[in-house]
Amino acid sequence: MTKTFHYCPVITPMSPFSKTLLFLLLSALSIIPTHQRQHPHPLDPLTPAEITWVQAIVHYSYPTSSHTITFHYVGLEEPPKPTVLSWLRNPFKKNPHRQAFVIARIDQTTHEIIVDLTFNQIISDQVHDGYGYPLFTFEELSAAVELTLKYGPFMESINKRGLKIEEVACGSYAAEWFGEKEMSKRIVRVMCYYLDGTVNLYMRPIEGISLIVDIERMMIRDFRDRSTVPIPKADGTDYRESMQTPPLGPTLKGTTVVQPHGPNFEIEGHKVRWANWDFHLSFDARAGPVISLASIFDVEKQKYREVLYKGFVSELFVPYMDLNKEWYYRTFFDAGEYGYGLSAMPLEPLRDCPENAYFMDAYFASQNGMPVQMPNIFCIFERYSGDIMWRHTETIIPGNVVGDFFFFFFFSAVALIEWERMFIYQVREVRPEVSLVVRMVSTVGNYDYINDWEFKQSGSIKVTVGLTGMLQVRGSIYTHKDQIKEEVYGTLLAENTLGPHHDHFLTYHLDVDVDGYANSFVKSKMQMTLVNDDKLPRKSYWRVVSETAKTEFDARIKLGLEQADLSVVNPNKRTRTGNFIGYRLIPGSITSPLLSEDDYEQIRAAFTNYNVWVTPYNKSEKWAGGLFVDQSRGDDTLATWSLRY
Amino acid sequence: MTKTFHYCPVITPMSPFSKTLLFLLLSALSIIPTHQRQHPHPLDPLTPAEITWVQAIVHYSYPTSSHTITFHYVGLEEPPKPTVLSWLRNPFKKNPHRQAFVIARIDQTTHEIIVDLTFNQIISDQVHDGYGYPLFTFEELSAAVELTLKYGPFMESINKRGLKIEEVACGSYAAEWFGEKEMSKRIVRVMCYYLDGTVNLYMRPIEGISLIVDIERMMIRDFRDRSTVPIPKADGTDYRESMQTPPLGPTLKGTTVVQPHGPNFEIEGHKVRWANWDFHLSFDARAGPVISLASIFDVEKQKYREVLYKGFVSELFVPYMDLNKEWYYRTFFDAGEYGYGLSAMPLEPLRDCPENAYFMDAYFASQNGMPVQMPNIFCIFERYSGDIMWRHTETIIPGNVVGDFFFFFFFSAVALIEWERMFIYQVREVRPEVSLVVRMVSTVGNYDYINDWEFKQSGSIKVTVGLTGMLQVRGSIYTHKDQIKEEVYGTLLAENTLGPHHDHFLTYHLDVDVDGYANSFVKSKMQMTLVNDDKLPRKSYWRVVSETAKTEFDARIKLGLEQADLSVVNPNKRTRTGNFIGYRLIPGSITSPLLSEDDYEQIRAAFTNYNVWVTPYNKSEKWAGGLFVDQSRGDDTLATWSLRY
Repeated sequence: MTKTFHYCPVITPMSPFSKTLLFLLLSALSIIPTHQRQHPHPLDPLTPAEITWVQAIVHYSYPTSSHTITFHYVGLEEPPKPTVLSWLRNPFKKNPHRQAFVIARIDQTTHEIIVDLTFNQIISDQVHDGYGYPLFTFEELSAAVELTLKYGPFMESINKRGLKIEEVACGSYAAEWFGEKEMSKRIVRVMCYYLDGTVNLYMRPIEGISLIVDIERMMIRDFRDRSTVPIPKADGTDYRESMQTPPLGPTLKGTTVVQPHGPNFEIEGHKVRWANWDFHLSFDARAGPVISLASIFDVEKQKYREVLYKGFVSELFVPYMDLNKEWYYRTFFDAGEYGYGLSAMPLEPLRDCPENAYFMDAYFASQNGMPVQMPNIFCIFERYSGDIMWRHTETIIPGNVVGDFFFFFFFSAVALIEWERMFIYQVREVRPEVSLVVRMVSTVGNYDYINDWEFKQSGSIKVTVGLTGMLQVRGSIYTHKDQIKEEVYGTLLAENTLGPHHDHFLTYHLDVDVDGYANSFVKSKMQMTLVNDDKLPRKSYWRVVSETAKTEFDARIKLGLEQADLSVVNPNKRTRTGNFIGYRLIPGSITSPLLSEDDYEQIRAAFTNYNVWVTPYNKSEKWAGGLFVDQSRGDDTLATWSLRY
Repeated sequence: MTKTFHYCPVITPMSPFSKTLLFLLLSALSIIPTHQRQHPHPLDPLTPAEITWVQAIVHYSYPTSSHTITFHYVGLEEPPKPTVLSWLRNPFKKNPHRQAFVIARIDQTTHEIIVDLTFNQIISDQVHDGYGYPLFTFEELSAAVELTLKYGPFMESINKRGLKIEEVACGSYAAEWFGEKEMSKRIVRVMCYYLDGTVNLYMRPIEGISLIVDIERMMIRDFRDRSTVPIPKADGTDYRESMQTPPLGPTLKGTTVVQPHGPNFEIEGHKVRWANWDFHLSFDARAGPVISLASIFDVEKQKYREVLYKGFVSELFVPYMDLNKEWYYRTFFDAGEYGYGLSAMPLEPLRDCPENAYFMDAYFASQNGMPVQMPNIFCIFERYSGDIMWRHTETIIPGNVVGDFFFFFFFSAVALIEWERMFIYQVREVRPEVSLVVRMVSTVGNYDYINDWEFKQSGSIKVTVGLTGMLQVRGSIYTHKDQIKEEVYGTLLAENTLGPHHDHFLTYHLDVDVDGYANSFVKSKMQMTLVNDDKLPRKSYWRVVSETAKTEFDARIKLGLEQADLSVVNPNKRTRTGNFIGYRLIPGSITSPLLSEDDYEQIRAAFTNYNVWVTPYNKSEKWAGGLFVDQSRGDDTLATWSLRY
């Protein structure tokens, strides 16, 4: 796959069509604060007006009268890092050009297009001739479902099962790649569920049906009805509080977070400033929240110091372990196939986020290239949970009793004095923990991912993902565990309901720039060391052996195999005592894949073979599973990039 | 070490001495609510009156006129589990006898004494003739420091260093065991620090001095002054907010938790009831908080179901890796030597715990056996941090638009309708997370451990320990990292300040009783499984292989070596579909020791060789490092108990 750039002519003179759009553009702009229009931050996401303008520019080159065109991704084409850093040093000089990156299907071909919004032109237009297809559009996924629900043989299958078609709900899913030599058309598989008495459709799968839709010709390509197994019953599946019998456990009286003097953050456009942190928050249809330019205020130096150039969810691999005919293919790449950002859901005030939350909208481009508003997609709030950031009580300072508090003997006045002196603390210093959280919830089908970026006053950034929502279950003939003698690839959760084994692998892209651009990755291993010295009473201790990664291959790490600290340090900056300045990467629970490395889905998800990978900055290497994930073949992943020596 | 029981006579008729005590006892009782006195819970900690009464009973058998006696531990002697469970089934029948467990040094001998407070007599008095000594008393630790500060050669050493004796602060530390054949006397080592311009004495160690105090004869047994290294300077070490120059970063406007309708918990004595949880909270001088009889309300069955019979911190091993003459011995057992509960500190309202916290006091017995009140030792509060317990947004239900919220196109009214239909969620259900926290802070010298038990409405119990406070640092000749060519066992943190490598291993004792007494421990391993079937498109998947531990030896687990779920299940109780009812043990970050297994401190801390151990219920096996830890030799630890087949 070679990458070639094609330069296209500027849109000038204006056609009547683009003039019309320009007008619309200006009316849109009127709702955007003036300072933002005049000085957008180079990393701000595309505005609705910009998205509209991108559509116009692309349509100008590819008029819909003579081309079929669908927009699969429209996002900011970020300036290169040196340009952003140079702008940061002098934000009053001319802004870098605003550019958009577009992935479009034009006449059945995938194009990667860069549109310059200052020059009003396409500056690069490249046909993707390698494996893999772009993100699905909502319209495609939705149309495939509509097609299914009206498809005769499918309706017959529903009828045969004694079900009502109006109670059937379906979803469209990526078909993935399993070693087929020829490249498939763009297809999805449609899976259906039954409502009829519950909103919890995921608990009522209609098994036995395989249905493949060609989403470009929008026609059913394959339909099979292999077998029927009972649909789990609706009773007890509805999760709405109002539907619970018996009702949910004791109802609690309310607990609220109050900030009588207002919040401590300042938000200007997409720039957030809180306590000692300053960062930029953007939205990307594929990644969801993008944190950029996070830097922390140094009180001694009276300036902000860089920490994180950019951080976002790069890919999300969800392989199921059920090898049945209608299930084996379920090895989803939620970010690269469906869009982690596109799947974001409006947050519910007071429930998804506390009372003191600030909400932010986002925009994406629909299939026809027009902007769509997603309200309340991010919330930003100060988190106070009663935790302690740091504390110490000092008790061994000799001298007079100082303080307002003492221990006492129960009976003896003489003893009282003695205990007072002994127990009283002379110093107690407690600093409560208040942090800042940026939250987005992405609902990819049945699962809801709660994605938090937490900034702490202590200087750390904590990234967490909460997995909630519904399980994807399989209908089954079994009603009791003891009936099961075959491999069922899961656990019987309820009558006729199997919970298939599966994993969720989230991969973050973290471009750490500690105190500047040039950083090294250091692994500090703790090594048990034997002592063979009769004069020493100890036989062992541990010491630290640090290694700086020389190649990407070196820097691949499987956690849990040894005790090690992982750091990103700036080798050019040292403390007064000579230590490198750096940040530690502290993992939570550790996991690793349990699929064979030559299995197709694992080749495509080879970025999960190691827990940590380190690569040098390369603007195009954003997506761990490659830019085009649907039906990808693993030739453009972190694992292939890291083979460079 | 054989255990023999000696029965002692009842205290009757009363001596004039015990009559006096009885009087005091009654005046003490008057401050305790009536219902509590009449019906104490069998697991309630000893009341101040009971502690006083225990002292009286022990003194009756060992009059202080003819015996030297010091109390090292006075706590509840719990009834056996079957007695407690039987009482629970019928709490209105006669309570089990209240008994106390006493560890005392009587005439230089360690006694394990059980006092029955109903019969007013010692019912067991056993001399401990094995290795190891009991907990230090505050009086001993404090007297050793006083002795040091007045000891001529020590004062000379201070003087020689040009320091002022009135600015010296010292602490007493366990000397541990390093293979000495003969059993040592009870000793401590005294380490000193310098104030003179800071309260952060830990940052100013006075190095080069070894000083050993015989704490029973209370005399200096050994004193050496080997070398002097500079004391790190006081500048910049004071941690009090008022002393910071420049001041701490931006001051935040306040954030408060408010419960306008009051808290949701009910606390009656030591019983806590909140949401769907019910448990008993006690205090133990050695363990700190003890959670007992935690059970959860089953809405369907309309009854509480057992989860945890008992949970507490069993031991805390803190080995330092510095092999210098004055440092090698620092391999502390914070619970068994100093008392994790004894080291607890009063919590500061609004800082250590939020506004909605309830505080609880605790009591322990001083060296002379009298009760000492520790105010505000526990806080209990509802934690609301803005987190989500469970949520789901459902978008694929076909049919009419329902809801108060929609996405919209920016410009086109026609498109608006289309997008509405496509994007609107039909169901959004969000349940915010509110949990209950029980907190204690234990300050063992320089370190502050924040010990939280968190009960969640989802049914899980989360146990966390936050490590904060000060580092224990070593004075050094070095002022810059580049000067260091030898092994210094740590990191140069500031001029003349080395931070020695060390670990903190916390071991919890969790007696899990899921839905009843008889439970099994099940390890479910996830195994990669290759598929050799041309008809299947997949080459691999993982399946679960469960093993029920047969012996204690089997059940020892090193985490991180394989992917496995650990569960405690009740093999006698199954769900309707036949699954065992159980609780999963979900570890956080994993660690393991890096000392050789034959090293003395590691023999004593052999309970850290595995991350998980499972033993059958045995009331006496509470302390992972053994009952007598000071100078123990590792013959009474989890590792020795688990050798049983």
